[in-house]
Amino acid sequence: MKFKIENTDSSTKARAGKLTLAHGTIKTPIFMPVGTQGTVKTLSPLELEEIGSQIILGNTYHLYLRPGQKLIKQAGGLHKFINWDRPILTDSGGYQVFSLAELRKIKEEGVRFQSHLDGSYHDFSPESVVETQRFLGSDIMMVLDECTPYPCPLNQAIESNEMTLRWAKRALEAYHGSESFYGFDQELFGIVQGSTYEEVRRRSATALVEMDFPGYAIGGLSVGEPKSAMYDMTAVCTEILPQNKPRYLMGVGKPEDILEGIERGIDMFDCVMPTRNGRKGTVFTRNGVLVVKNATFKEDFRPIDAECECYACRNFTRAYIRHLFKAQEILGMRLASLHNLHFYLELVGMAREAILADQYGNWKKTFLDRYFSTKN
Amino acid sequence: MKFKIENTDSSTKARAGKLTLAHGTIKTPIFMPVGTQGTVKTLSPLELEEIGSQIILGNTYHLYLRPGQKLIKQAGGLHKFINWDRPILTDSGGYQVFSLAELRKIKEEGVRFQSHLDGSYHDFSPESVVETQRFLGSDIMMVLDECTPYPCPLNQAIESNEMTLRWAKRALEAYHGSESFYGFDQELFGIVQGSTYEEVRRRSATALVEMDFPGYAIGGLSVGEPKSAMYDMTAVCTEILPQNKPRYLMGVGKPEDILEGIERGIDMFDCVMPTRNGRKGTVFTRNGVLVVKNATFKEDFRPIDAECECYACRNFTRAYIRHLFKAQEILGMRLASLHNLHFYLELVGMAREAILADQYGNWKKTFLDRYFSTKN
Repeated sequence: MKFKIENTDSSTKARAGKLTLAHGTIKTPIFMPVGTQGTVKTLSPLELEEIGSQIILGNTYHLYLRPGQKLIKQAGGLHKFINWDRPILTDSGGYQVFSLAELRKIKEEGVRFQSHLDGSYHDFSPESVVETQRFLGSDIMMVLDECTPYPCPLNQAIESNEMTLRWAKRALEAYHGSESFYGFDQELFGIVQGSTYEEVRRRSATALVEMDFPGYAIGGLSVGEPKSAMYDMTAVCTEILPQNKPRYLMGVGKPEDILEGIERGIDMFDCVMPTRNGRKGTVFTRNGVLVVKNATFKEDFRPIDAECECYACRNFTRAYIRHLFKAQEILGMRLASLHNLHFYLELVGMAREAILADQYGNWKKTFLDRYFSTKN
Repeated sequence: MKFKIENTDSSTKARAGKLTLAHGTIKTPIFMPVGTQGTVKTLSPLELEEIGSQIILGNTYHLYLRPGQKLIKQAGGLHKFINWDRPILTDSGGYQVFSLAELRKIKEEGVRFQSHLDGSYHDFSPESVVETQRFLGSDIMMVLDECTPYPCPLNQAIESNEMTLRWAKRALEAYHGSESFYGFDQELFGIVQGSTYEEVRRRSATALVEMDFPGYAIGGLSVGEPKSAMYDMTAVCTEILPQNKPRYLMGVGKPEDILEGIERGIDMFDCVMPTRNGRKGTVFTRNGVLVVKNATFKEDFRPIDAECECYACRNFTRAYIRHLFKAQEILGMRLASLHNLHFYLELVGMAREAILADQYGNWKKTFLDRYFSTKN
């Protein structure tokens, strides 16, 4: 893995860089579409490429349960199984175990949980999730962590974080003690936890930096805390994380949150929002969010976003897409998902250009002013 | 409209031709993907073009109810509304009124029915459905007919057919007395009814031919009658219908039914089977049908059909598509629908080549022998 920073904005901490992974080089800051079950919902790999997706995410928890790591190994790894030859990042399953699985029991050894699919019992340990991600063959693997809920008492945040740190160390050992099944390098990122407590975040970031991971994520944010806490915690972490390694803010977020993250030195983002909201008929535009299936758009023969060049905006009207949603036609979900991901990818692309031009702060202000004040 | 027969197979009645409509020329025999609500389910117009769809079908009943003919006129017609610039055929809504709508009352004047969407009352008459199809702006419009159920007593078949003939005459008058809103020609096809009674079919076909429609459809088949009856009635009709006009066998059917129809002189087909079955995980191949979501295919890393060149077969395995169905991911339905339509379009394309080479009978036998005897 190679990470090269091309420019750091002179008046913010925003950075533009290039991250070279086994399956290609990605330009940061970057947004990663989420392909939970081996598919970015409703879209084909071809469409993802066409809108400029450089890296996608897979969920270890889901893929471990179905179709299972053995089948994916038989297929030659996740890239081959899903027909995606650009980089893939897989999470550790930690977040899903804590948010999706039924009846979980956390011990020092790891976590025992019941599948949300069939109630069967499974164990994840720091070592086992590295192994599972070896089976998947992702370019970037994540360590198993405990994601604390919000709010979380300080005491619990400290204890949980200490265990997450011990888990991170074990994961790193498992990582160094194993190798890829597929003949290419896989990276392992550590995850900073610590809820909304500055001192716990600092302790977490400092300890992980000492362990020397190839890259770092910030986890446990965007879980219900105030925006200001999310932004502050991000800044606390990026202050400590090394300049020369990529930083990934997990599960974030809304367009404005992504821009705030970039401003604080984040390089990578993922979020289900563009696809999940798209499937429900909510779309993002330069002029803010609109719920395309609302009656307002019944006779609106303009595209979702007149300035957007995605397939949906070049070819279809709001009135038609609204009709598709009212008639429960899948093409509606497809077009809205495609447009939203295109919007997110263009957003980080524009942010990158602004950083390279050393104009990030101004560009961000102009973008958000319009985004929040214009009417669709 | 121009219809030119390029060759009639010397040992069967199969014909290959070219039908020129307002939005382009289609090569017959042809299969028409069904776009009930202004979208061929799960697919984009771009994908339909890529698999070689030359004409698609829209359902007047559905589009009349939602989004409504007024909105479609505002959009500039159905072609513009759905972003499809090749030919469109719209049915009359007759079949849907009889199969979908609640509580219908048929009178000489027309049919009153309750919407399956909201229970609201509506009236269709031979004149009104021509008008609705003028609003839609389809290249080929269909007359309102009564589609008899199977089995149907002779008495009822005769009476129903006589009314359908009177309706056809009224539709033709409404057609000649109106014109396109959009500045291009629309054709009106008559529909032969008569259940499974040769003499009623003959009476129907003869009377319609006298009325001199631009083209003719055969309706009321593939509604539960024995295959032999479907094939026989088709032959009875094509015996009477003029050679120099296109013939459309409505709602048919399975691959073997289409080939039997072609053998009896049919030029056009439509059926929801490729898309409906695709959405349920059933796919068509040169070696017969397979249910891709079955456990048999769990570790099957071959494409659906190794000889198929569609996007699904070039890029994905049965194991992956099965996973998508098990995980209820929309991409599974998309890939299976795309493949099935590609299969149907290739099927009629191969039939056409065989007719042009004067080898239809042999080709059909070879194709069906393999289709019914090979294991996937």
